[in-house]
Amino acid sequence: MSDNTRDTAPASRTPLTLLGTGAMGSALARAWLAAGHRVTVWNRTPARAGALAAEGAAVTASAAEAVAASRLVVACLLDDASVGEALEHADLTGRDLVNLTTGTPAQGRARAAWAEARGARFLDAGIMAVPPMIGHPESGAHVLYSGSGALFEEHRDTLAVPAGARYVGADPGFAALHDVALLSAMSGLFAGVTHAFALIRREDIAPGDFAPLLASWLTAMTQSVHRTAERLESGDYTEGVVSHLAMQSAANATLLRTAEEQGVSPELLTPYMDLMARRVADGHGDEDGTGMIDLLAQAAPRATG
Amino acid sequence: MSDNTRDTAPASRTPLTLLGTGAMGSALARAWLAAGHRVTVWNRTPARAGALAAEGAAVTASAAEAVAASRLVVACLLDDASVGEALEHADLTGRDLVNLTTGTPAQGRARAAWAEARGARFLDAGIMAVPPMIGHPESGAHVLYSGSGALFEEHRDTLAVPAGARYVGADPGFAALHDVALLSAMSGLFAGVTHAFALIRREDIAPGDFAPLLASWLTAMTQSVHRTAERLESGDYTEGVVSHLAMQSAANATLLRTAEEQGVSPELLTPYMDLMARRVADGHGDEDGTGMIDLLAQAAPRATG
Repeated sequence: MSDNTRDTAPASRTPLTLLGTGAMGSALARAWLAAGHRVTVWNRTPARAGALAAEGAAVTASAAEAVAASRLVVACLLDDASVGEALEHADLTGRDLVNLTTGTPAQGRARAAWAEARGARFLDAGIMAVPPMIGHPESGAHVLYSGSGALFEEHRDTLAVPAGARYVGADPGFAALHDVALLSAMSGLFAGVTHAFALIRREDIAPGDFAPLLASWLTAMTQSVHRTAERLESGDYTEGVVSHLAMQSAANATLLRTAEEQGVSPELLTPYMDLMARRVADGHGDEDGTGMIDLLAQAAPRATG
Repeated sequence: MSDNTRDTAPASRTPLTLLGTGAMGSALARAWLAAGHRVTVWNRTPARAGALAAEGAAVTASAAEAVAASRLVVACLLDDASVGEALEHADLTGRDLVNLTTGTPAQGRARAAWAEARGARFLDAGIMAVPPMIGHPESGAHVLYSGSGALFEEHRDTLAVPAGARYVGADPGFAALHDVALLSAMSGLFAGVTHAFALIRREDIAPGDFAPLLASWLTAMTQSVHRTAERLESGDYTEGVVSHLAMQSAANATLLRTAEEQGVSPELLTPYMDLMARRVADGHGDEDGTGMIDLLAQAAPRATG
């Protein structure tokens, strides 16, 4: 945002209402205020909203008043139940409700139906960033949106102010599904990184020397997700496999033995090894790891919405 | 390697012996042959060594003969025990033994002492590549070496022919330790990726559309290992934390609930969540995840030798 752009009249920017001024909500409010938007905020406990008032935000005493102030309403609250409670007495007729509150796909779908029944268009969202990244698109911060494509198109520029905006589908559950899928993958990555650092923890190896090796190795290995996607689409899990599951499963013994030598609990590694062993035992030792995805997805009955 | 370089007399290249011509050994032999090295090979079952003979390798009937043929001896066998068996009757006096056989740090250290007692210099190694990447350094293929620095310096150019060569320390256990640490981290990464794909498996989301989001997200998150290394070195796990463990631990409920909604077993995610919950319960909810490394490394008594 150049200084020149900041000087344009705020009236040319879409006014918006923000419900929830926790760490993330406050960061969002500041990004929109900095870009010249008129921002109306409400928070259940008023203190944090007060800090934003000094920076130009209009503060209301009730969520209903905040909703009445702008057609575009953004909710960034504790959880899905908080959204229902905050908006219980608000008139959503003709409103565009963008829900940045963390939730599950089923909650996103149910909240979409709830909002539409109250006369609002609805977009659910998953924020792939921590608050300090908001307002700094160069950080890679982005938000995944799903639901009303018309709402997204109309407000795309406004939504892109605090972080990159990406639409992932009309199904209002898809934003949360993508969000949780990415966070779950990150959790696995961090588990692997935790184990790796634990292995070298008591040796004379500087973590700062090890980290670049680890980062470049994991970055290279991450590229395998494209091949996995191709295999999921083709259904062929064996063609051109160079390191098949039976070999990988046998090699796990060295990983476990090394953990034991280094005094590191194998608890973060064993579930993946066990799943691999089950896939091999099922007669798929000639595959790469793609079939483990099917095994995991078949492991439990799917809950109904 | 330019054609011009290939034309130089083979005699100018260091001759070497390769023990073990499985998929990896054969790929290594071909890379050295292509670069103009005289290569003597031995394999316990002769068939695969025979194929290399047609490509210019000298094949011996015994490992002892192969060792006698070159000062530089590279072993790429099934496991550490195979190295001891193959070399039982070989004269290692004055030999430079490079062990590319997969093993644990303790095996690397014991094998180094064993080789030195027989009059050889010793270098242990961990290959960070699959056979098709060998001879293609642009693939990122590299080998981690530890042990005799003098051996590594003297043969650095030869060792760098099949894959990038990186020396990680005089401790002969360090190559295997780095190797296993990187493979363990990869295992965590793949576990996370498996769970993520399983979550979208039964939805109308093309894996090929999801993969680029996943790759760029994981690549960005991988950069966190540098911050983790800084924290391990400083011992300060709380300064500047923006997403502390207590928050992360609470957010895990959404990941578990989504897995349940999608009918995906949470087995690959729960051990990391459980470790996080233990760290929070220990009174470290204000930290980032670095302390989980200490918790994991303290979880079991360290095995000796």
